[in-house]
Amino acid sequence: MAKVDGKGGEGVINALEDIAPDLGRYIVEFAFGDIYTREGLSLQERELITITSLLAMGGCEPQLRVHINGALNVGLSQSKIVEAFMQCIPYVGFPRVLNGIFTAKEVFAERAASE
Amino acid sequence: MAKVDGKGGEGVINALEDIAPDLGRYIVEFAFGDIYTREGLSLQERELITITSLLAMGGCEPQLRVHINGALNVGLSQSKIVEAFMQCIPYVGFPRVLNGIFTAKEVFAERAASE
Amino acid sequence: MAKVDGKGGEGVINALEDIAPDLGRYIVEFAFGDIYTREGLSLQERELITITSLLAMGGCEPQLRVHINGALNVGLSQSKIVEAFMQCIPYVGFPRVLNGIFTAKEVFAERAASE
Amino acid sequence: MAKVDGKGGEGVINALEDIAPDLGRYIVEFAFGDIYTREGLSLQERELITITSLLAMGGCEPQLRVHINGALNVGLSQSKIVEAFMQCIPYVGFPRVLNGIFTAKEVFAERAASE
Amino acid sequence: MAKVDGKGGEGVINALEDIAPDLGRYIVEFAFGDIYTREGLSLQERELITITSLLAMGGCEPQLRVHINGALNVGLSQSKIVEAFMQCIPYVGFPRVLNGIFTAKEVFAERAASE
Amino acid sequence: MAKVDGKGGEGVINALEDIAPDLGRYIVEFAFGDIYTREGLSLQERELITITSLLAMGGCEPQLRVHINGALNVGLSQSKIVEAFMQCIPYVGFPRVLNGIFTAKEVFAERAASE
Repeated sequence: MAKVDGKGGEGVINALEDIAPDLGRYIVEFAFGDIYTREGLSLQERELITITSLLAMGGCEPQLRVHINGALNVGLSQSKIVEAFMQCIPYVGFPRVLNGIFTAKEVFAERAASE
Repeated sequence: MAKVDGKGGEGVINALEDIAPDLGRYIVEFAFGDIYTREGLSLQERELITITSLLAMGGCEPQLRVHINGALNVGLSQSKIVEAFMQCIPYVGFPRVLNGIFTAKEVFAERAASE
Repeated sequence: MAKVDGKGGEGVINALEDIAPDLGRYIVEFAFGDIYTREGLSLQERELITITSLLAMGGCEPQLRVHINGALNVGLSQSKIVEAFMQCIPYVGFPRVLNGIFTAKEVFAERAASE
Repeated sequence: MAKVDGKGGEGVINALEDIAPDLGRYIVEFAFGDIYTREGLSLQERELITITSLLAMGGCEPQLRVHINGALNVGLSQSKIVEAFMQCIPYVGFPRVLNGIFTAKEVFAERAASE
Repeated sequence: MAKVDGKGGEGVINALEDIAPDLGRYIVEFAFGDIYTREGLSLQERELITITSLLAMGGCEPQLRVHINGALNVGLSQSKIVEAFMQCIPYVGFPRVLNGIFTAKEVFAERAASE
Repeated sequence: MAKVDGKGGEGVINALEDIAPDLGRYIVEFAFGDIYTREGLSLQERELITITSLLAMGGCEPQLRVHINGALNVGLSQSKIVEAFMQCIPYVGFPRVLNGIFTAKEVFAERAASE
């Protein structure tokens, strides 16, 4: 998980500490321990799928933010992330794609500012 | 589009002919003409993203069926399609993934029967 | 309600009789008694809005079927119903619009057969 | 899990055997092993929450069917299940509640027939 | 309604006064007058169901905030509210549960600050 | 598009310029060029349908804001917009309608302030 989500994911786990520590533990153990470590897809492919599912569900912008960072952390380029969202237009419509793109724009700007 | 969706996509377009032919035309021109032909992602990556977005939205089993066929048509293996749905579990929950897997099971069986 | 949904709505209310009669009563009293009778929109506009909201939510095909009939009952033409669904493409994506159009196609065919 | 979902859950796990056995294993280990066995809520409360979340998501009728059976298996009455769905009307709207009630009606009838 | 939602619900009704007073009236009359006063479930069970349905729908954080307060007002403990959200993980996925937990965290902190 | 969305739509297109200019182009060409210019519905009817679909989807408040402005720009009255959202109550539930009404309240106030 450190490799994928870095500080963003760590911040989420820490914020859960005093209210629902088991939720953080399940994210670490189940989402990252059980699912992300499976064979058959590369980490880059897994992050592509994760950001697509978050975009399509709607209302998951905080998690999308963490995983756009995760996608960059495992080596996906900014343009590939944008292109993944473009591919969703016909299926989820423009509004959810716009929400995803503007979330990506914020993440890209934050990382540029902190470099 | 012929390459991706084959007969399944063709059937959809034909079924629209007498009620909303422009809908079929937009699918061909916009979804396939404009979006699928863009650079930056392979056809296999585009289909991975498409089936993920359809799974995450819910209630799109007919379209998921067409695009699981599409994913196989562009060379994705059955196990990679299943693995893409497994990756969605933490984000969309078990029910939508079960719906996706059982749709895939039907598609795989139909193709096996027609070979 | 008789005016709008006709036999389709009546069938729903009857089917609720032995399991949740109050649900039928609330639909009649609240949805039709309180909401449909409000001023400010025509019955045709109300049905346009209803079928659009049902299409956009997804997974509401049985209710969409009742209200496509309702839309026709209050005088909306088949082509206007189809056009309303076309207008949704950019916002809800192709899959939900396809589900709506194919539901409309079935309703139109049933009415043609019973005339 | 046997206690909650009985044959319905078992049927799902078996149907996954040849396509995604790990999905069945995660449902058993994570959903039932980790979550259902937690303290703080009774099994009846857990099933009330499960059927409510499935109703609210939409498009999860097969899973709703399994868990309406599960709710009955852990001792919830038919009228309490119906009442839980009635409570959802103001929040999720009539269509999803109608879908839930008609799914419950089928489950209740099946159990009556097999008794 | 005063008993359940207290000042949070009152604030919503007041905010509607100049734009859609009937919406406030329907919430009071239908949601609280007709639904909450029904027999068959306790107020605590009704609030458990309400916060679960709001969590599962997604994008309803303002209403979730009002009803987490409502759940506390009718005597549900903080840990039971958190546990209800934990029960939703397998069905709605981690992102919506995280949104619910962080909304609860804010509500709990506000109430602690005002005590 | 200038006629419908005015400055709001223009702002969106400009904000996309440096990250996903093609997304802006598709909105202009497909949503406005292809769909809005179709025959069979008036611009007012098209905006009624658009704001209804955005309300029903949930989580699309930024786009709803643009299109409530659009609805006013093509001549829909404030009360008709509010009434359209009232019509959605039975189908999408109170929470999404409340989100829509409060978004409308903000838009109406902004326009009053800038007049």
